[in-house]
Amino acid sequence: MIDRPPHVAIVGCTGAVGREFLNILAERDLPMASLTLLASPRSAGRVIEHDGSPIEVKALAESSFDGVDIALFSAGGEISRQFAPFAVESGATVIDNSSAFRMDPGVPLIVPEINGDVLDEFRGRGPGIIANPNCSTIIALMAIAPLHRAAPCGIQRMVISTYQAASGGGAAMMAELEQQARDHAAGRPLRHDILGRPYLFNLFSHNTAIDPATGYNTEELKLIRETHKILDDATIAITATCVRVPVLRAHSEAINLTFREPGTMSEAQARQVLAAATGIRIVDDRAANRFPEPIDASGQDEVLVGRIRADISQPPGKGLDLFVSGDQLRKGAALNAIQIAERLVTGARMFTA
Amino acid sequence: MIDRPPHVAIVGCTGAVGREFLNILAERDLPMASLTLLASPRSAGRVIEHDGSPIEVKALAESSFDGVDIALFSAGGEISRQFAPFAVESGATVIDNSSAFRMDPGVPLIVPEINGDVLDEFRGRGPGIIANPNCSTIIALMAIAPLHRAAPCGIQRMVISTYQAASGGGAAMMAELEQQARDHAAGRPLRHDILGRPYLFNLFSHNTAIDPATGYNTEELKLIRETHKILDDATIAITATCVRVPVLRAHSEAINLTFREPGTMSEAQARQVLAAATGIRIVDDRAANRFPEPIDASGQDEVLVGRIRADISQPPGKGLDLFVSGDQLRKGAALNAIQIAERLVTGARMFTA
Repeated sequence: MIDRPPHVAIVGCTGAVGREFLNILAERDLPMASLTLLASPRSAGRVIEHDGSPIEVKALAESSFDGVDIALFSAGGEISRQFAPFAVESGATVIDNSSAFRMDPGVPLIVPEINGDVLDEFRGRGPGIIANPNCSTIIALMAIAPLHRAAPCGIQRMVISTYQAASGGGAAMMAELEQQARDHAAGRPLRHDILGRPYLFNLFSHNTAIDPATGYNTEELKLIRETHKILDDATIAITATCVRVPVLRAHSEAINLTFREPGTMSEAQARQVLAAATGIRIVDDRAANRFPEPIDASGQDEVLVGRIRADISQPPGKGLDLFVSGDQLRKGAALNAIQIAERLVTGARMFTA
Repeated sequence: MIDRPPHVAIVGCTGAVGREFLNILAERDLPMASLTLLASPRSAGRVIEHDGSPIEVKALAESSFDGVDIALFSAGGEISRQFAPFAVESGATVIDNSSAFRMDPGVPLIVPEINGDVLDEFRGRGPGIIANPNCSTIIALMAIAPLHRAAPCGIQRMVISTYQAASGGGAAMMAELEQQARDHAAGRPLRHDILGRPYLFNLFSHNTAIDPATGYNTEELKLIRETHKILDDATIAITATCVRVPVLRAHSEAINLTFREPGTMSEAQARQVLAAATGIRIVDDRAANRFPEPIDASGQDEVLVGRIRADISQPPGKGLDLFVSGDQLRKGAALNAIQIAERLVTGARMFTA
């Protein structure tokens, strides 16, 4: 529990998510006593403008967290594993965007709209690590969790296919995709230094390692396991196919839900539940054929939800199909982490009133 | 049954599929007595080079089919409905790539590798209409049908999410997508005369009308109904979400299968079945993270199949996940139609020996 404007540090401030941390902090009303920007020694010394003031980027070190209350980490799992313990030792609460601690039973995995109440208990215990879920998990659950909670016996099974953007691979992957459009327009061969394949006008299975035991890739296993943890129900049967599409910064997902009992969730009931949920916006205009599109979700805080329809292959009220698009860098990463920070700071809104 | 090199006509020879008919006829060994090219009056008079000879495009008319044995139609449902009856009356067998007659109970809906044997019976009845299935149906079923047939009790349920290319919307949609890459590279606003939305770096729900009763779009209903007809089993529960992605000419699909009985199909059994099937190629290199990609499927006759894995959310042998990519213009349209023609011509291969 933090009962005064906190000293905040960002670890990985020059990455795609790091930059979005800065954008979102400038937009929202989280009061801060100070803001420290940390990055690799390579980026140290750079000056970043924030809210009208220049801030010098400092090299991340074990001693970087003296006096820091909240440390927002987004510099990959290795950096989190190495430096988060020093931050905690210095008295900071770490909000970690990497996968390093997500499945640690002692670490809360939080989407504020879904299980933010877990933090109420955690705050009493003082500083520690809070994990930000994976982008594709957050974006899917923003639509799924309200439906799961509204269903008396909950969801039995989910089949999810993702359409994931370049931003999940970082700023360099986004730049490579845009570079390939320029190469194509100029009639040059497409450069592919990062991916080793054409990305423009192509798509490919998510570029994470395949688990030899199951054949699932890491992204798919994250989506499954993190959903179990966030919904606190490991009995939900989940399968997923994660695919990278040539889109810049918003993930889309086709979601098929089976409820435990027939008669659970009609299309009309689902619309009612989704309309009442926070953090999502229904985009579902059948006459105009307008549904969630990544280009409309980009730069938005809300996850767009559409193609809401009863699964015609199931008994009435048993199955539901949805399609969602959400900004990978905002709700899928930086925004969610900052919403967690806001919940940690008692009366955050009060300070700025 | 046609027991001599046939007179062949192509209706819609200037479209994306029409041009692919010509490419494929030049590559394959279907013997022809003559080739007539038909299109709208707008295109009449154009000269198209085929196999080294110039052929003048003629305006489609009721009398265009005199002496024609096989008429390959790909000029949209309206043209098929209007002109196919004249072709049949003239004694031709129509192979129709539109959706006009697919669900007509008297019209065979054929993927030669899957239900080509239906034609054996049909041939005895003389000329008529044979329907070519929708592209997304053909590409999915090339992998699904062998698994369905190998499973003693068959498939119970399919959940399919598609990643469909511009080519399904015709040559103009492909050109618009490429134009948008040039616009982006030049820093211009993206022109979108056809789609009314950015397509580059975006995706959108398939641009076909939504059925008001179900909320499914026409593409999804085609996939469901045509699968029931081709597999001759309307009891299979199928749901689908069809999405257009910024890819030029190959459709991909994430397929989740549930078999009727547990213990039906292990991953190893699935691999064996798929390896023995014709018209598909397994691309499934987990170590190198190489799976079907539309850019690799483009221009290929075979449908690429990968991400073959047991669905970990199901009991062993009950569920299977797959990912396929297939060329929309070839196996998804023109190639399949020409394979049907080859089956109609008795001893087609003999004539060219």
